[in-house]
Amino acid sequence: MSILIKDSLIVTQDDKRRIIRGDVYIEDDRLIEIGKINVEAEFVLKRRIVLPGLINMHTHLPMTLLRGYGDDLPLEEWLTTRIWPIEARLKAKHIAIGTKLAFMEMVATGTTCCNDMYFFEDVIAEEAKKFGMRCYAGFSIIDFDTPEMKKDLLLPECEKFIRKWNKDDLVTPVVAPHATYTCSPETLEKTAELAGKYDCFIHIHCSETRHEVYDVLARYGVRPLEQIKKYGLLGRKTMLAHCGWITKEEVKEIARSGACVIHNPVSNMKLATGGFTPLPELFEANATVTLGTDGAASNNKLDMFETMKFAALIHKHHRWDASVVKAQEAMDMATVNAAEFLGLNAGRIEEGKKADIVCIDAKQPNLLPLHNVVSHLVYAASALNVSDVIINGKMIYHERKFLNIDEEKVYDEVEKAAEELVNLREQ
Amino acid sequence: MSILIKDSLIVTQDDKRRIIRGDVYIEDDRLIEIGKINVEAEFVLKRRIVLPGLINMHTHLPMTLLRGYGDDLPLEEWLTTRIWPIEARLKAKHIAIGTKLAFMEMVATGTTCCNDMYFFEDVIAEEAKKFGMRCYAGFSIIDFDTPEMKKDLLLPECEKFIRKWNKDDLVTPVVAPHATYTCSPETLEKTAELAGKYDCFIHIHCSETRHEVYDVLARYGVRPLEQIKKYGLLGRKTMLAHCGWITKEEVKEIARSGACVIHNPVSNMKLATGGFTPLPELFEANATVTLGTDGAASNNKLDMFETMKFAALIHKHHRWDASVVKAQEAMDMATVNAAEFLGLNAGRIEEGKKADIVCIDAKQPNLLPLHNVVSHLVYAASALNVSDVIINGKMIYHERKFLNIDEEKVYDEVEKAAEELVNLREQ
Repeated sequence: MSILIKDSLIVTQDDKRRIIRGDVYIEDDRLIEIGKINVEAEFVLKRRIVLPGLINMHTHLPMTLLRGYGDDLPLEEWLTTRIWPIEARLKAKHIAIGTKLAFMEMVATGTTCCNDMYFFEDVIAEEAKKFGMRCYAGFSIIDFDTPEMKKDLLLPECEKFIRKWNKDDLVTPVVAPHATYTCSPETLEKTAELAGKYDCFIHIHCSETRHEVYDVLARYGVRPLEQIKKYGLLGRKTMLAHCGWITKEEVKEIARSGACVIHNPVSNMKLATGGFTPLPELFEANATVTLGTDGAASNNKLDMFETMKFAALIHKHHRWDASVVKAQEAMDMATVNAAEFLGLNAGRIEEGKKADIVCIDAKQPNLLPLHNVVSHLVYAASALNVSDVIINGKMIYHERKFLNIDEEKVYDEVEKAAEELVNLREQ
Repeated sequence: MSILIKDSLIVTQDDKRRIIRGDVYIEDDRLIEIGKINVEAEFVLKRRIVLPGLINMHTHLPMTLLRGYGDDLPLEEWLTTRIWPIEARLKAKHIAIGTKLAFMEMVATGTTCCNDMYFFEDVIAEEAKKFGMRCYAGFSIIDFDTPEMKKDLLLPECEKFIRKWNKDDLVTPVVAPHATYTCSPETLEKTAELAGKYDCFIHIHCSETRHEVYDVLARYGVRPLEQIKKYGLLGRKTMLAHCGWITKEEVKEIARSGACVIHNPVSNMKLATGGFTPLPELFEANATVTLGTDGAASNNKLDMFETMKFAALIHKHHRWDASVVKAQEAMDMATVNAAEFLGLNAGRIEEGKKADIVCIDAKQPNLLPLHNVVSHLVYAASALNVSDVIINGKMIYHERKFLNIDEEKVYDEVEKAAEELVNLREQ
């Protein structure tokens, strides 16, 4: 496939964070050229804002099926009366449907790559492949039987999963021990061994709630981050979701380790987890910070534009300082920081990069006048402005229509699946 | 004009907050019938979510021209180096252009009524009339010369403005003393007299920042709300923007007075004003609470869907309690609370109401499955979902296109105006 984007404003996210005017030419999976270009192409777009596709670093894709099914409830009640009873009934077919819906929502809101963690991860990986989504697929390890299998099967099945996907172009297998309060020291240790054996990324919840921190401290005598470190899970391939209740010492520990922090401001606020990822201190320590939406059940969207805005605003508010977490920093967390951490040859608009690209139609009332394009992308843009999305060089979403999927069919499947799940629950 | 909306889910916002399935028929400026309806109509829509148009209770419309022109700066620096130098150069033509752009953005994001406060308010009122926007137009009173006129002319010109618009169907004149730190006691007193003479609404900034509160306390020995009361401005027609730094005693005082509070969560967070409108206490005291975006320069959108979500989430976060500010409460603040306070026969989908109505296309990835429609409108919806907007019975925005204005022409005007303003500033 070949795509030419003419007369556009290019948010390169290069080392100098340059904004340049010009054309972009894409062929196969690559961004071939930036400049003044006159070639034939299958798709020709004009006058767009071109930016690297956003990277959603923490989500639970199939939870789109639980969107809005239980809100405004205390966390414990939400989990025990709403989320867990439904999750227990999930089958592979529901996972596939919820995942497709999640991909559609993410693409329509400018996301080209996601880092998932759930059950039935092989089903999710297959859906990513079919849809054309770039997906880091986290196979959950936990000390309970899952809706998919008995707990004793999790580690061996995870190993098969890694072997199956290890060389794939779009899907990267990730080992995802759920958290230190749901995985025993033995499980953590074995998980670390498995991840080490294949040099896999590790994705784990860390210090999301105050309760979690004190629970782990009471049980094991150390806080979650120390527990993660103690059992060999902390390193340059570790992705720590939340870190809402970490200490200044832990900030330094994370920076030293090379692990990355995934900040999920919308979910943390909605679930009222209280503590908050200390972005200014993490930036100061040169830790890698990225952004995620968390699952649709606690957000209730998968919209990274919204997440960038929440991330920038909540920290200004906390610190009584409008200069904290600037627009450019929010943009970096959602693009280049994540790509660099993942070793993904994307996250920037540069020649030779993989073409994971979002195009914005800037002729819209909320994006004018265009005093500052990065400010607009973080503070003013919305899903309404996303016109085209390219993943791995393929045009997936064009002029606000999906080219890769029958939308109406998915919507019908979603409605049926949701009905089925809720009815099962209520029987 | 006649409009029929078939087979839809109607978020009535009636006393029982019922959600009903059915059809809605609109003729002239009224909602004529709800039920199973078969009539001919000029416009026939199908399978929508129908809700009352959102009401943006605090904004400065022409500031769309300054969107993104200075972000991430401390408040003082932002005002003195960015906003005020540009504002000083505003002419009537810029006001008209910025206002049109604001109306377009608001309508595209589901707002049908706004409460403005700015200079050149007659120009704004004329634009509202031309566009077909329902607008409470606040004529600013302040102790400085404005870009429009000398300060001594403000009160007499405001009186002319009131007389001109007092009987209008779409535009309602409002008296808008800027704040207690920018209006002397004498000005406040004369403004109260003028508002009283015509039984006008009063719109004033109150306790937005800590600095403001201590400044007024130092100068006058009382806090802003007491100053407002002392000079006769506090009553059942008073709209208090922000109230971020009010005491528990002031919460009770506001509730007793019948005044309404306008909460602007996005602007407060972006400008890092620190204090925060105490919604749970205001609800407890049965005060009227509504929502606003503030101007586009400090938000940087005029999107009430986003504002509802911020309003619900920030208070959950503050109180470490996910049950604080529920979706229904956010929805109420943006619709029925505001309409009731204004005495506006809208804000609900009921027979006989003025037809200020928003239609949502629910067949979109972020709104499925539809477990809970109010939750979706507050936590999951975005501008992308707004398909049609009806104001005073007129179809203004249909299938995401404006019927009342030449979009491209406005965009060109906006770009020229912004360039002119910034260049003037830089000379």
